[in-house]
Amino acid sequence: MDPRTGLPVVGMVGGGQLARMTHQAAIALGQSLRVLAVTADEPAPLVAPGVDIGSHTDLAALRAFAAGCDVVTLDHEHVPTEHLRALVADGVTVHPGPDALIHAQDKLVMRRRLAELGVPVPPFAPVNSLADLTKFADEHGWPCVLKATRGGYDGRGVWIVRSPADAQPVIDSGTVLLVEEMVAMRRELAALVARSPFGQGACWPVVETVQSDGICVEVIAPAPDLAPARADEAQRLALRVAGELGVVGVLAVELFDTGNGLVVNELAMRPHNSGHWTIDGAVTSQFEQHIRAVLDYPLGATDALAPVTVMANVLGAGQSDVMPIDERLHHLFARLGNVKVHLYGKAERPGRKIGHVTVLGSELPSVRRTAALAAHWLSSGRWADGYDIHAGERA
Amino acid sequence: MDPRTGLPVVGMVGGGQLARMTHQAAIALGQSLRVLAVTADEPAPLVAPGVDIGSHTDLAALRAFAAGCDVVTLDHEHVPTEHLRALVADGVTVHPGPDALIHAQDKLVMRRRLAELGVPVPPFAPVNSLADLTKFADEHGWPCVLKATRGGYDGRGVWIVRSPADAQPVIDSGTVLLVEEMVAMRRELAALVARSPFGQGACWPVVETVQSDGICVEVIAPAPDLAPARADEAQRLALRVAGELGVVGVLAVELFDTGNGLVVNELAMRPHNSGHWTIDGAVTSQFEQHIRAVLDYPLGATDALAPVTVMANVLGAGQSDVMPIDERLHHLFARLGNVKVHLYGKAERPGRKIGHVTVLGSELPSVRRTAALAAHWLSSGRWADGYDIHAGERA
Repeated sequence: MDPRTGLPVVGMVGGGQLARMTHQAAIALGQSLRVLAVTADEPAPLVAPGVDIGSHTDLAALRAFAAGCDVVTLDHEHVPTEHLRALVADGVTVHPGPDALIHAQDKLVMRRRLAELGVPVPPFAPVNSLADLTKFADEHGWPCVLKATRGGYDGRGVWIVRSPADAQPVIDSGTVLLVEEMVAMRRELAALVARSPFGQGACWPVVETVQSDGICVEVIAPAPDLAPARADEAQRLALRVAGELGVVGVLAVELFDTGNGLVVNELAMRPHNSGHWTIDGAVTSQFEQHIRAVLDYPLGATDALAPVTVMANVLGAGQSDVMPIDERLHHLFARLGNVKVHLYGKAERPGRKIGHVTVLGSELPSVRRTAALAAHWLSSGRWADGYDIHAGERA
Repeated sequence: MDPRTGLPVVGMVGGGQLARMTHQAAIALGQSLRVLAVTADEPAPLVAPGVDIGSHTDLAALRAFAAGCDVVTLDHEHVPTEHLRALVADGVTVHPGPDALIHAQDKLVMRRRLAELGVPVPPFAPVNSLADLTKFADEHGWPCVLKATRGGYDGRGVWIVRSPADAQPVIDSGTVLLVEEMVAMRRELAALVARSPFGQGACWPVVETVQSDGICVEVIAPAPDLAPARADEAQRLALRVAGELGVVGVLAVELFDTGNGLVVNELAMRPHNSGHWTIDGAVTSQFEQHIRAVLDYPLGATDALAPVTVMANVLGAGQSDVMPIDERLHHLFARLGNVKVHLYGKAERPGRKIGHVTVLGSELPSVRRTAALAAHWLSSGRWADGYDIHAGERA
């Protein structure tokens, strides 16, 4: 309990953009998020005052951090399970708890559990050798998908392999792997839900996510042309997974839409890129909802504020001669008055997520075009539609 | 320029809820608001890392603070004009500047200037003695309104006087005063605009503000049953005042709607209670717009997100046996899933603004009822509609 406010203290392990945006949402609830960050220049420490500097792999740092919190939650999946168990044994409230989180940390554990529950997943098998892989491929065909069981993100830790020769270097690397059938899919969807310890669940409209090189670049809410029965199925599936696994907080269920049905791809137990649109586009954002859930507050309404919301990620500039981000912002605002910008305070590296933009509206094509135009501009300092900026004249 | 982000640094003098909510908005723009606060437990220092502790009346503290900022702006009107002039003479960019701000600091200066500009204001006169007052009242009638030229807020510094005897103690107090005719009005409105140094202006829909004991308790956006021509007149008036006075940032023009026309009551040159609804209810909030304006970024769209938005202030509990704020929040969220809550982290005192709630919808009566119900509950721990909470059973 914070004696200054009379409110419980939420601490988040990890200082990335998710913690940054969670702090932003926390402010409205009278809170100030406490953060355990590795360095002081991460996105969250730049904007939050209650920061401990320390590693999420250092149990002593975790314990010292947890001592100042009523509940501990997570910006990422990289806290060792045994450390979370130690905190729980200390009496710390950790949401999501280690028994739930393991399903977002270890893809093989997740696959086995979801299969047990009868949730649709692709055929899969653990891979300890090339023989394991070829046995699987003989049955399910090439190409197939090798995945690191732990630690992958944004397309890292995923390899589409077309032959044993393709797979050999991955297997030789010593990474712990599983193999999955490559699902023939029309598109990717995400069902985002939140669950409280009390057991209340809430789901946002199901969205379509668009990836490029394994990185999510665009989210469309609601997913266009999704049959209501299919959307309902996705939401029920996500709520059921949240309940069965005992998730507390936000759960993102990434799905393949095969055209004939849904297959679960990945789980994330924290605010998720597929839910960034909710900051501007829903009554309750995923960040506020996550705080409400981990505090066991009743959950907020998840209705969309507009018929269509599109979120596009802003990736770091690929070229070194790009105009400064401050000037890119000026020009963006000068041209597009209705784009909501979210910058994370991160140093730019090509392909790194440094922010996102959100556009609300009623006509999907124009909303989508505006969001893409804005994100591309902020990423590159170049308008994708031929509009020209004589940047040199300003300087 | 913050070398960590490549973005200019905005500093706000004053650590109240306006600075708190400005910081919240700043986060999305890649910023972290710097704050000069008197104490570390004010609303903004509780949530922002870049805080100097010092008084806004201490020029040395102001200078040290300004040295770390690219632009300095204000959470309140209490910085002495001569200190702002000293900062400007030092080369500091101050928005709004002292020549504009004086019109929000000194009601007599404001009244004279607006009268010169032909902007409708009530008849007024300076009051140095009881004779000055009775001379004015002989001409304009009793009751009339005595106002402290400086420092009043939330009904303080305003006295409705019905006779010389009524006025005598106020005059004897030595407060510098003016007198105004008491305007016969139907209701109060507010026209909120923003203006950038470049000269761009933007206005939000005109709102109705409802006061109780001189404190704003409710804001309805847009103002119900306001003729489009009258709304247009209010917006043009506010934009003209912003331009003529050289305001940079948000300007709130409080208006009396007499039924036959508009009369200016007060000016505020900062985010204002009448604009809190924009956080949840408009594409660009007044807090984001204020930052954009003081940075000379192009301004954002001001469209409302719903047909009706109602904001209600949460005042500190009047009774000492109220249930803790954390439990009040639980119960609020359990009953009303679509209310947006904003708490300021302030200690409760009866009548003190400790937060606000916002509700969006399409039917004014139900939206208004929900907002009032929620604000009353958070203020008092009692449902105003007879709904009962057995608070004792939970503890």
